[in-house]
Amino acid sequence: MSTPSFRNWQSVQDEALRRIHAREWAPGELIPNEADLAEEFGCARSTVNRALRSLAESGILDRRRKAGTRVAAQPAARATLTIPVMRHEIEERGETYGYQLAYRATQVPPITTSAAMATGSRVPLLHVRALHLASGTPYALEDRWINTEVVPAALEEDFEAISANEWLLHHAPYTHGEIAFSAVSASDDMAEALLCPEGAALFTIDRVTWDGAASVTKVRLLFAPGYQMRTGL
Amino acid sequence: MSTPSFRNWQSVQDEALRRIHAREWAPGELIPNEADLAEEFGCARSTVNRALRSLAESGILDRRRKAGTRVAAQPAARATLTIPVMRHEIEERGETYGYQLAYRATQVPPITTSAAMATGSRVPLLHVRALHLASGTPYALEDRWINTEVVPAALEEDFEAISANEWLLHHAPYTHGEIAFSAVSASDDMAEALLCPEGAALFTIDRVTWDGAASVTKVRLLFAPGYQMRTGL
Repeated sequence: MSTPSFRNWQSVQDEALRRIHAREWAPGELIPNEADLAEEFGCARSTVNRALRSLAESGILDRRRKAGTRVAAQPAARATLTIPVMRHEIEERGETYGYQLAYRATQVPPITTSAAMATGSRVPLLHVRALHLASGTPYALEDRWINTEVVPAALEEDFEAISANEWLLHHAPYTHGEIAFSAVSASDDMAEALLCPEGAALFTIDRVTWDGAASVTKVRLLFAPGYQMRTGL
Repeated sequence: MSTPSFRNWQSVQDEALRRIHAREWAPGELIPNEADLAEEFGCARSTVNRALRSLAESGILDRRRKAGTRVAAQPAARATLTIPVMRHEIEERGETYGYQLAYRATQVPPITTSAAMATGSRVPLLHVRALHLASGTPYALEDRWINTEVVPAALEEDFEAISANEWLLHHAPYTHGEIAFSAVSASDDMAEALLCPEGAALFTIDRVTWDGAASVTKVRLLFAPGYQMRTGL
């Protein structure tokens, strides 16, 4: 057998994904059983089990108790995105980072915001708007709400010299979050800040992070026209 | 020690990421050395090493040969996206999938396309345009080029009954790919197909897949206004 030995479930998973993408294991087709794969890979059967379980959770494999494991009829592709702090992203492009605070106030948020953050509908939150610039050119608009019951130190910070994006990284722990990507038409306010035509298509990231059951912050990042987020497949 | 034992590098990595997000290991701070972590986690030092190496590759940790391992000053967030076949995505939303072929021809592509696919600038490729519908409503426009030197069987397929998106999954192996997400203003053609106003902001996925050194296909998917791609953090 020419297959090298696999020491951990991650490498078994990588090899299984390779075979699926290469159609050596075709969509809808039954794959070898765990015992045979463990022998082929020179690893424990539990290692194979862990790898196949992870692929089943992503909808790439289809496992049936009696009928064995098949490649899903429509196996999905998987991509991992790295989402850096704005300043770091801009500096990694070789550009000079710039930052301008536009607005900072404690206020009761719109009902959609308090609902998304699971805060009471009349609980005031800290609202911060700022512009990130790359070599002097508008790069992204940040519109953020901070739950100051969870991060009271934010009330002491004026966000004049450091963005909330970066400050929170150092001061606000979180356990998990939700992120959504979409396209938004620039309103007149957005267009004025980003120096782009009104109605321009803006790549947008919405993110809510949580510390256990309490929301930490909700942010919308609106990127200037032409922005692309890239990764490998 | 209350820490449960960790059997594989993936679970060590998950615990390290949890500590970084929870700021138990703060940005810029030195983390314990591998031997101490291996003892705490009840696993081999090589398992700890593999986990920290993976986090360093993502820019989350900063490893220096002599100076030890620190949390990056600006640790990035990581998100995993699952990108299903269009029909599967629509059916999973509980909607009825629909498909309309708009165009199919073999032609020499624009120079930007042949460059992105690393095909010769005068080599004809198969060009397919189609509309995906959810319960009768336009959902996404697919604009695709297929390298028929790599996938000659595509020349025999009329793509009237099955989308190239789904057909390729079953007939065209690939080894890797690149994917980019952006926002595009609807041209008059796009607006007419998607039944949306001209200039509307469209969430867009561009993807090129490769079989070794040869490109397989290049596709642009333009989603109807309001589309969001979501995942956990």
